[in-house]
Amino acid sequence: MSFFTLEGRSGAARAGTIRTAHGDIQTPIFMPVGTRASVKSLWQEDLEDMKAQIILGNTYHLFLKPGHELIERMGGLHKFMTWSGPILTDSGGYQVFSLADLNKLTEEGVTFQSHIDGSKHLLTPERSMEIQRALGSDIVMAFDECPALPATRESLQKSLQLTQRWAKRCKTVELKPHQNLFGIVQGGLDLELRRESLAGLKDLGFDGYALGGLSVGEKNEEMVALCASFVPEMPEDKPRYLMGVGKPLDVLNGIKAGLDMFDCVLPSRNARNGQFLTHDGPLNIKKARFVEDALPPDPSCDCKVCKRYSRSYVRHLFNVGEYLAGQLITYHNLYFYLQMVKKARESILAGSFDDYYQTFYNHYTSNKWE
Amino acid sequence: MSFFTLEGRSGAARAGTIRTAHGDIQTPIFMPVGTRASVKSLWQEDLEDMKAQIILGNTYHLFLKPGHELIERMGGLHKFMTWSGPILTDSGGYQVFSLADLNKLTEEGVTFQSHIDGSKHLLTPERSMEIQRALGSDIVMAFDECPALPATRESLQKSLQLTQRWAKRCKTVELKPHQNLFGIVQGGLDLELRRESLAGLKDLGFDGYALGGLSVGEKNEEMVALCASFVPEMPEDKPRYLMGVGKPLDVLNGIKAGLDMFDCVLPSRNARNGQFLTHDGPLNIKKARFVEDALPPDPSCDCKVCKRYSRSYVRHLFNVGEYLAGQLITYHNLYFYLQMVKKARESILAGSFDDYYQTFYNHYTSNKWE
Repeated sequence: MSFFTLEGRSGAARAGTIRTAHGDIQTPIFMPVGTRASVKSLWQEDLEDMKAQIILGNTYHLFLKPGHELIERMGGLHKFMTWSGPILTDSGGYQVFSLADLNKLTEEGVTFQSHIDGSKHLLTPERSMEIQRALGSDIVMAFDECPALPATRESLQKSLQLTQRWAKRCKTVELKPHQNLFGIVQGGLDLELRRESLAGLKDLGFDGYALGGLSVGEKNEEMVALCASFVPEMPEDKPRYLMGVGKPLDVLNGIKAGLDMFDCVLPSRNARNGQFLTHDGPLNIKKARFVEDALPPDPSCDCKVCKRYSRSYVRHLFNVGEYLAGQLITYHNLYFYLQMVKKARESILAGSFDDYYQTFYNHYTSNKWE
Repeated sequence: MSFFTLEGRSGAARAGTIRTAHGDIQTPIFMPVGTRASVKSLWQEDLEDMKAQIILGNTYHLFLKPGHELIERMGGLHKFMTWSGPILTDSGGYQVFSLADLNKLTEEGVTFQSHIDGSKHLLTPERSMEIQRALGSDIVMAFDECPALPATRESLQKSLQLTQRWAKRCKTVELKPHQNLFGIVQGGLDLELRRESLAGLKDLGFDGYALGGLSVGEKNEEMVALCASFVPEMPEDKPRYLMGVGKPLDVLNGIKAGLDMFDCVLPSRNARNGQFLTHDGPLNIKKARFVEDALPPDPSCDCKVCKRYSRSYVRHLFNVGEYLAGQLITYHNLYFYLQMVKKARESILAGSFDDYYQTFYNHYTSNKWE
């Protein structure tokens, strides 16, 4: 059985199955982010309830605390956090640039100071692989450099060539037998640079290909246009992953372009700001209009939050700072994403993705709660 | 059917059933505290899972936010928070003295400023009844004054006489048909004053009698001694409630003295400080010895936390400040209390409470985790 099987298409949108040692993943899929071995404010039981198929862990955070060696001694990340399904770990590169202090980039790798205790570390392609090997994730990401946009063509090209040399070094490290390695395509919004990056990675050969360096400062239309043009050129027989993206419509646009995998902290982070994602667009529970509203947060949702709790109650919880507010909204928001991609998959298999997209789009942009 | 049925005894310890419109409560019972219409960091589903039989809501907090009138318009506290089991509400008196600013005591009641926004309010016996009527709790507490200990005999007597006059005024307010009113016995550590207070309340007649004004500064042995002497004099045919107490052994001592109902924020509050309550005593998950400990928090516990998560994992969560740490420890700690009182009840019905007490005591005080 191959790692990835393409099962259907609707336009450029794809439905498939990724097979891992910890279970199958039906694509397109959204991956809840469990940065520090926990999807914030949810029990692992909640992730099972909502049928999350794969979650993401952050190499940078887990390396610093509790340390990948401890996690390996405890039996790996799956056992440590008692999540038996597939896990993807990122390379740590993005966090080293965005979170750590005093990072210094050389050909060798990145020297940085921990944002927690100021301790000094060197992260290299080989080190990133060793850490991810110790964590035991099912999908390992190559160590890349991700430049912020806008950036000059020259600096983007220099960066992707470094990423290419690093990718080659990643390939030299032996992973565990169950692990799969994805390459990361860079090149900003420049189609030619993206092609150059992809060609280099394809020569090395990876189990999947990710688009990195998007949603890092550019306009949304620019990202959508780049995906629409470039994604069809990515290998057909491998999973395609749009890293760190995005809002519900960004994910749907990614699916439309032919991407298979997505992750984003937005459903969790916005939950902590009181934002429910609903079929009629984002609903800010803080608004006075919900003070005596007995309806569920999203009446067209069948999650365990919407089946039980009212807007009025969740608004009260949020207002007085009860933990339960964030717990309920996070649960609903992740459920919302998982349902959105599940129904996208069904529509792709039925050959009607465009209808699904249009209906979702019309409701979601109705500004009902503005 | 009477409100309270006594079903068994073992020494002074009692087992019984309290019947309410929202279900039966098998005593002795511990009541999780849901101050602001939420037991901190738990879903209502969690309370159902752990078979909580009754929860507590705080009148002072709910009066300030979201307001008892809003809760009444939303169908009452049960419907507002979707908890279909019994609820007890306190009178607001204790919080007015301990939390509010600039409180001023008169015969009429207490004038205070909200600790949230500084707004000025007057809480009287009648007002406390009206608020609790609006909330719709199954057990309503009379409005009392609770002096801190140590206090002079004179001030204690003055205070209990005020509480007595307030209790009389509480009785004049009509509650909802399903509501039951408890009187609160004051008098500090003075047996004669406790008797005076109880006699006054019995003359008025209440559905249950609570011991107030304990665990407010006195020594633990003093509280235990007062309960052992006084509780047997309380009415046999009514529930006896020890308010705001306490640690696991305090609850067991209360049961031993013949008390039926208990509440305390300790299992939730200590959870947020990393303390698991176990059969071998409190376990502080922060300790270095647990860093690679793959055992469950309490190996002799069968709660869903102990069946799945390791000390090492919870320690990591706590260390990095993940919400899940508090959620897991709170769940376990409340489960621990509920199991403790459930097994106490079983031993009372079997006539072997003393054995249960001694076994629990020996394990709990073993200092295994010190």
